[in-house]
Amino acid sequence: MPTDYKFQGWLGLNKDSAKGQMVWRDYDPKPFEETDVDIKISHCGICGSDIHTLRSGWAPTLYPTVVGHEIVGTAVRVGSKVEGGLKVGDRVGVGAQSLSCLKPDCEQCSNGIENYCQNHQTITYNSKYPDGSKSYGGYGDYWRGPSHFVFKIPDALPSDVAAPMLCGGVTAFSPLLHHKAGPGKRVGIIGIGGLGHFGIMGAKVLGVDKIVAISRTSAKKADALKMGADDFIATEEDKGWNRKHRQSLDIIISTVSSPKMPLQQYLSLLRVGGAFVQIGAPEDNLPSFNGFAILGKRCSISGSSIGSPKEIRYMLDLFAEKGVHTWVNRIPMKDANRAIVDMEAGKARYRTVLVNENHASRL
Amino acid sequence: MPTDYKFQGWLGLNKDSAKGQMVWRDYDPKPFEETDVDIKISHCGICGSDIHTLRSGWAPTLYPTVVGHEIVGTAVRVGSKVEGGLKVGDRVGVGAQSLSCLKPDCEQCSNGIENYCQNHQTITYNSKYPDGSKSYGGYGDYWRGPSHFVFKIPDALPSDVAAPMLCGGVTAFSPLLHHKAGPGKRVGIIGIGGLGHFGIMGAKVLGVDKIVAISRTSAKKADALKMGADDFIATEEDKGWNRKHRQSLDIIISTVSSPKMPLQQYLSLLRVGGAFVQIGAPEDNLPSFNGFAILGKRCSISGSSIGSPKEIRYMLDLFAEKGVHTWVNRIPMKDANRAIVDMEAGKARYRTVLVNENHASRL
Repeated sequence: MPTDYKFQGWLGLNKDSAKGQMVWRDYDPKPFEETDVDIKISHCGICGSDIHTLRSGWAPTLYPTVVGHEIVGTAVRVGSKVEGGLKVGDRVGVGAQSLSCLKPDCEQCSNGIENYCQNHQTITYNSKYPDGSKSYGGYGDYWRGPSHFVFKIPDALPSDVAAPMLCGGVTAFSPLLHHKAGPGKRVGIIGIGGLGHFGIMGAKVLGVDKIVAISRTSAKKADALKMGADDFIATEEDKGWNRKHRQSLDIIISTVSSPKMPLQQYLSLLRVGGAFVQIGAPEDNLPSFNGFAILGKRCSISGSSIGSPKEIRYMLDLFAEKGVHTWVNRIPMKDANRAIVDMEAGKARYRTVLVNENHASRL
Repeated sequence: MPTDYKFQGWLGLNKDSAKGQMVWRDYDPKPFEETDVDIKISHCGICGSDIHTLRSGWAPTLYPTVVGHEIVGTAVRVGSKVEGGLKVGDRVGVGAQSLSCLKPDCEQCSNGIENYCQNHQTITYNSKYPDGSKSYGGYGDYWRGPSHFVFKIPDALPSDVAAPMLCGGVTAFSPLLHHKAGPGKRVGIIGIGGLGHFGIMGAKVLGVDKIVAISRTSAKKADALKMGADDFIATEEDKGWNRKHRQSLDIIISTVSSPKMPLQQYLSLLRVGGAFVQIGAPEDNLPSFNGFAILGKRCSISGSSIGSPKEIRYMLDLFAEKGVHTWVNRIPMKDANRAIVDMEAGKARYRTVLVNENHASRL
């Protein structure tokens, strides 16, 4: 099957690209394999990871790069060996991961947690496939990659609503599932941004007893309550917040990643046996803390990274059924440079999605 | 029932007591209640906590204090309302905790984890009972306290072997139980001292697949292998140890508490989903670490504090059945000052027990 399209996207050529200096150019995608799918991109969410990567914040980036890993569009080419019965014309999406080893003897892949595979992971951009070719993300016209990590989008979810769920949504939702958020549990969500708003909405559909949104100021309080929060803590405004809310939460999902976060006080909010789960991926070390905070209550500090294909499918179906809608700002793909600058400035309410108007119109 | 004995012990009067300057004096124990037991002390283990407390290392100490919370002896007075059928003449012991709220509506006490009770805890020394009287420990002739935390010692366990199990033993054993150490699991024990040697022996009787002892030097390697370790890492001698042993352990029990410990490298030893459990109680903060160490493998850093009465009984019976014996150095109670100085100097192999020869001879 020949392709009558070429791959073009917003390329980051160096660290300055994070300041809104990506350039629109052709690039060569990975060679097509029979397990691959080509997606004509209609929507791509902007994730904090995009900006970390553009500026080489976590590690030196493999420039040139095309970021974006919250991709929805139409399957326009499917290999003969694709998984999941994908067909040309299907509305599909891909998240932050594009490949793992998928070997039957891999403890992670064989147990449905491909996102923790330690043998091989190709992430959706700034990464390499086993053949050495680079992965490119969704700030562009088309995306190509393995079908194992491509998901059909439920009819009830509009594309702009679905796209940010594929990374941001599942990153917040996966640890809620893993730590058994549900009736009887009280959940805190630190940071009311893209991840945080999914954390609140995800905890809500799981039926937890109480959701406490935690932010530095009360600027987002009204929004957080609308998303489903029952209570709100503004750490820079509510004096004595850590004493007032002492030992009130079973699970805390931390979407922030500042080395200055008041970790010790956050830990004081946990009940006996409580779990503090870090999902905001930091460029610096986490703050140090006193060990008694975890000894005397048998608390844990753990991490969580994106979600598995199984969790993504479960989340998409559940969010479709329960009517969970991303709070989304639509921006034309042509304005991607402005969009990332606004995102970095904290203007997203609560997830920005780039829209290829010409592609979207055909859906 | 009148008492024909008085309470005397090694009192710490100030911070210098930790340097071997405790003084032998009378003191007033708590008023006797009908739920109490008086123990004629034959043996008392020396725990690191004793020295932390004598020097006000964790917090200002309520001087004068008598430390020691690994106590074994003979019940010489029992109240009319004691629990567990305790009788005068029974060989009994008490560990680091002497009281919790014990209320039926306490989530911890009603679920058999009195050691995490958040309403009230009297620890065995340097603490207060609800009536305001102070608790005094086992570096002395007699001990008095509530029967809920007094345990019969199985016949198969000699008193000097049993005493250190009551704090050190269960502190290392409880997190192994909680994190389901057993067949299929690989366990690392950091620090081969009193706690560490119980960690190795405890993991052994639980039937784990592999035990790796971790120390700074290889000085204790032969001992660790005798205790049951299958492998040994000397972090200051084995170049590249963290790469060689990368992702090889499911559970790591950290008995050390230095702010300089190589936490980041320790975390690299964990497999996906692994647990790093801190039981060494630090005077300083734990070192900071990079969040990716816990995000990418969904690992946890947690803590654990002593053990519950239920766990202590289970451990005593299991250790008696399996022939687990504390490696013990016996020192006369009269030489307690020398004993704590030697302990602090790292001379214990692996637990020092003070012996009241005149009391012990009658057992």
